[in-house]
Amino acid sequence: MPDRPDRPDRPDRPAILLDLDGTLTDSVYQHALAWRKALELGGIQLSVWRIHRRIGMSGGLLAESLARETGHELTDKEAAKMKQVHARLFAAQMGDVRLLPGAKELMRHLTKLKVPWAVATSGALASARPLLELIALPPSIPLITRDDVQHAKPDPDLWLAAAARLGVAPESAVAVGDSVWDLLAARRARALGVGLLTGGYGQEELERAGAYRVYEDPADLLLHIDELGIRAS
Amino acid sequence: MPDRPDRPDRPDRPAILLDLDGTLTDSVYQHALAWRKALELGGIQLSVWRIHRRIGMSGGLLAESLARETGHELTDKEAAKMKQVHARLFAAQMGDVRLLPGAKELMRHLTKLKVPWAVATSGALASARPLLELIALPPSIPLITRDDVQHAKPDPDLWLAAAARLGVAPESAVAVGDSVWDLLAARRARALGVGLLTGGYGQEELERAGAYRVYEDPADLLLHIDELGIRAS
Repeated sequence: MPDRPDRPDRPDRPAILLDLDGTLTDSVYQHALAWRKALELGGIQLSVWRIHRRIGMSGGLLAESLARETGHELTDKEAAKMKQVHARLFAAQMGDVRLLPGAKELMRHLTKLKVPWAVATSGALASARPLLELIALPPSIPLITRDDVQHAKPDPDLWLAAAARLGVAPESAVAVGDSVWDLLAARRARALGVGLLTGGYGQEELERAGAYRVYEDPADLLLHIDELGIRAS
Repeated sequence: MPDRPDRPDRPDRPAILLDLDGTLTDSVYQHALAWRKALELGGIQLSVWRIHRRIGMSGGLLAESLARETGHELTDKEAAKMKQVHARLFAAQMGDVRLLPGAKELMRHLTKLKVPWAVATSGALASARPLLELIALPPSIPLITRDDVQHAKPDPDLWLAAAARLGVAPESAVAVGDSVWDLLAARRARALGVGLLTGGYGQEELERAGAYRVYEDPADLLLHIDELGIRAS
């Protein structure tokens, strides 16, 4: 399907949709430990690796799916409480969260090349705010958060909303994330999924989840950006 | 080569050699974050995922190899200082470290079946002590630490020393760990390597590193212990 009615023979130039947590900021491990404690305080004992592998999902879905795995049924009130406790525990660790290598340079480069780009996160705006300060997102760049959509990743809504805000077809967009949930959501949005190792998944896991390419981090992606069909002209 | 000169037709019954951090205790993520900060305080900025993938190595090797990756050459004094800072930061998080599911039951079961078993850790005795209290290691069970060998994992020394203390040939032993370094050390010791997902590696990574089997955690291993040639009789 042509994306540009004015030039039906040529689809949109690629747009880049970026996940935030674990893709631009080095915050996945702090999230995992904050969730472990929040779940335990809510009566759910889980190993950190199991939680780690759910990071990137919406918080509500994460808490509910992990609770279900342990045979615990969460009420809405319990789930909301856990999300609150997690947000508080994560905020207490924000002082140790850093930008990932190349994150700033990648964002600057996309802007310089006039590549349409946006940020889409499974987090709510309130909890994402400290991370947004860290990445210093330019006000002109669309930001889609949990609050803007009905379902977070692995549903496709966040990527779809980001593409819509840029006015591009999702099929022309490259969705970049560090978790299998980003990639599953990318498949469902029919965007091209690209994985980063920064979330702590192995390359094989990201490839199996549908990553077209896997890079180490934003710096490595920037170094190979021509592989995504983005020309420096 | 026969392992028992008295019965040259029959090798030893399998012995089980267990890693500690990430295999019996859920402590890998706390280690990764403690190392991130210790490295940063020493002037080395690294993403957590890169550190995560080195956990299980000896601390000195980890600090040196990560420093080298960033083009930084560590003096012995700097490396020792970093190890100290890491130990202090990790100790501050011990209150959040839990036993892994099935760890106690696995240890009890091995003792009950009179399977020879031992614990071998890349950590020094001083830093492993709180974890040893957590697992309540029976005094009759051999414990090999960093202090007992010249080189920690991925060198084979720890597994070899553990087998020697049990009086079994390493070729008859099953070495269980959560990291690729445990498995590389197992190969070099000619023991059968078994992986656990508790360290946050994906199954494919552990298999590629030589794991004969990969289980989720000690509870899952215990459920399938017959697959390791250990009979309940």
